Amino acid sequence: VTLLTDFGDADVYVGVMKGVILGLCPEAQIVDLGHAVRPQGVPEAGFLIEQAAPYFPEGTVHLIVVDPGVGTERRILAVEADRQHFVAPDNGVLTQVLAGVEAYRVFAVERREYSLPDVSETFQGRDVMAPVAARLACGLPAPAVGPEVRGDLVMLPPSRPVAVADGLEIHVIHVDRFGNLVTDLRVEQLLAWQQEQGVGSVLIEVGDRTVSGVRSTYGDAEPGELLAVVGSAGRLEIAINLGSAATVLGVGRGASLVVRPCA
Amino acid sequence: VTLLTDFGDADVYVGVMKGVILGLCPEAQIVDLGHAVRPQGVPEAGFLIEQAAPYFPEGTVHLIVVDPGVGTERRILAVEADRQHFVAPDNGVLTQVLAGVEAYRVFAVERREYSLPDVSETFQGRDVMAPVAARLACGLPAPAVGPEVRGDLVMLPPSRPVAVADGLEIHVIHVDRFGNLVTDLRVEQLLAWQQEQGVGSVLIEVGDRTVSGVRSTYGDAEPGELLAVVGSAGRLEIAINLGSAATVLGVGRGASLVVRPCA
Amino acid sequence: VTLLTDFGDADVYVGVMKGVILGLCPEAQIVDLGHAVRPQGVPEAGFLIEQAAPYFPEGTVHLIVVDPGVGTERRILAVEADRQHFVAPDNGVLTQVLAGVEAYRVFAVERREYSLPDVSETFQGRDVMAPVAARLACGLPAPAVGPEVRGDLVMLPPSRPVAVADGLEIHVIHVDRFGNLVTDLRVEQLLAWQQEQGVGSVLIEVGDRTVSGVRSTYGDAEPGELLAVVGSAGRLEIAINLGSAATVLGVGRGASLVVRPCA
Repeated sequence: VTLLTDFGDADVYVGVMKGVILGLCPEAQIVDLGHAVRPQGVPEAGFLIEQAAPYFPEGTVHLIVVDPGVGTERRILAVEADRQHFVAPDNGVLTQVLAGVEAYRVFAVERREYSLPDVSETFQGRDVMAPVAARLACGLPAPAVGPEVRGDLVMLPPSRPVAVADGLEIHVIHVDRFGNLVTDLRVEQLLAWQQEQGVGSVLIEVGDRTVSGVRSTYGDAEPGELLAVVGSAGRLEIAINLGSAATVLGVGRGASLVVRPCA
Repeated sequence: VTLLTDFGDADVYVGVMKGVILGLCPEAQIVDLGHAVRPQGVPEAGFLIEQAAPYFPEGTVHLIVVDPGVGTERRILAVEADRQHFVAPDNGVLTQVLAGVEAYRVFAVERREYSLPDVSETFQGRDVMAPVAARLACGLPAPAVGPEVRGDLVMLPPSRPVAVADGLEIHVIHVDRFGNLVTDLRVEQLLAWQQEQGVGSVLIEVGDRTVSGVRSTYGDAEPGELLAVVGSAGRLEIAINLGSAATVLGVGRGASLVVRPCA
Repeated sequence: VTLLTDFGDADVYVGVMKGVILGLCPEAQIVDLGHAVRPQGVPEAGFLIEQAAPYFPEGTVHLIVVDPGVGTERRILAVEADRQHFVAPDNGVLTQVLAGVEAYRVFAVERREYSLPDVSETFQGRDVMAPVAARLACGLPAPAVGPEVRGDLVMLPPSRPVAVADGLEIHVIHVDRFGNLVTDLRVEQLLAWQQEQGVGSVLIEVGDRTVSGVRSTYGDAEPGELLAVVGSAGRLEIAINLGSAATVLGVGRGASLVVRPCA
């Protein structure tokens, strides 16, 4: 069972969910994906779970509690995809990860007997989602949690590269701990665009700075030098070797960059 | 075995305690309750362990190392309560959790053969408490650790609602990651007070702001609206939907609020 | 398997490595030593692993990913020492821990079949080091990962006490969460110097302040009083009882202090 929340580290909310899980499925192995998602940061959590899920084995249950609508009419979902399960509110947090899988089935978590006896309106991660994740980890089939959802799920508008005059506008979707700017341009998309446009090497405009070419890794640039690199998520990143591109450039999540042919 | 400390995340003190536990009880499952308690924050740790313990299964050993008196004459306790164990210094950190249990037995950790061979004066969490917690997790009966303590334990003065002229003064005992102000007023106490005073709905005064009524959940208010809610710890909370009440109101731990009848 | 990285808590890099490890060695127990090492903080990570390793049982695999040279020509090492394994880049991060062991053998991680099928140039912690650590934890002998390294490893210049006129210059090598200043002076070295110089008790000069004598523990000083103590790592520490020496003195990592005979 993996846990991804916006609960931070100052409270015992995460620990309490683990206690609930271990009480119902003592042999579960629990892994923290992260709890530093900013409060109510649904798209950020969506990016993180998309990045992490493929590296976990079959049978993993991913529990994602970033849930600004807790206690309101929003549904709680249990999704079966790629031999893993995802338990999360129906608020779009699964948009990116489900876009990457071939097929999935979605169930609404409604069977009350799988929740804790008392369900609060303010912490359903503890009272509903953790118990269901524990039971799925211990072998409960997903269809048992409630009716299959056949209609639409809440989906977030995806961040996507956009063709512009003589270039490709791309966007920063994540800033990591090293200050690397992770963009919405996947390496396959970059190669396809280069081929389509007959472009050899590329320039990337970031504010009033320009980066030339795409390097293999951070250490291929001089210390302090700005570079573009294909990061570990298979996406174009702007980085500074041994420094922080985010700090030096003053650029954050949501910023636009432009890829251009190198003259 | 759960761990609650004021060790933060910049050192390996927590990891080292886990190494000691796994060396002595390899099959122990270790769960972090939190390590962001402010240094020497005994009452804060007391609130957190009270909130978390009920959600853990029988047999859990809770190890609490918030220990400003390390190496001085203060005792180290092993407490048996509700089929769980608590290992902690005798400094009041167990006040709140023990107030909520029917019966408990307390033992002083004195048998040196259960500690590491070398006991430092500055890190007894590692050298004394972690080894004892590991052995309890692996089945050592609590009476084996040392003599039963029959006299008084160190207890902290509890934070409690106080009746005032035409109202009930309550206090912020915790600010969570979302900026929600958790108070010392339990929902049962609120209902009892309303009944006793013949009060229908209530107002809550927070500084120069007034909140009307108690909602079911955060999303029952408009985005940015101040509200009162019964939080997941069964206590009255002041919150802002999709915002931080602590930041907006400039209110923190220890602040006083007043509940009044709604005219 | 223990994990020590500079990945922080805002990304899923750590969680992803755990997914990889559990996929290859499901029975591994994973312990976080810390992820708050500052980016590219090789000496800091070296101090932390030296402090932690002795408290872990035989068979532990320590995985250390502080790797500014990722994807460049630097080697990845698997070291067998004291019945534990260490997997880390060859950048000096193992200097301190290997200085403390009698004998060790070093292997270069080169056998590609033990890595993930796709090896990125920017995250070899995930693609090479985590898979190897998982296999070592599940019983792969270290010599299987690649050729034995007989030449020199990258080593960092160690921080060491230096004899000066009428004293001993020592250095702050770590500031812990409590603001305690951990120095490079081990208690054995202090005692040896005292004996050699015929020195009874000592003074320690920290900036324009002077600390007299070495206490047993923090609580032996008055609240707010500056003191010297032998810390839990067996090193001289400068601390303030119930306060932060680092904040009050404005002293950090790298600062020099002088130990003098007490007149």
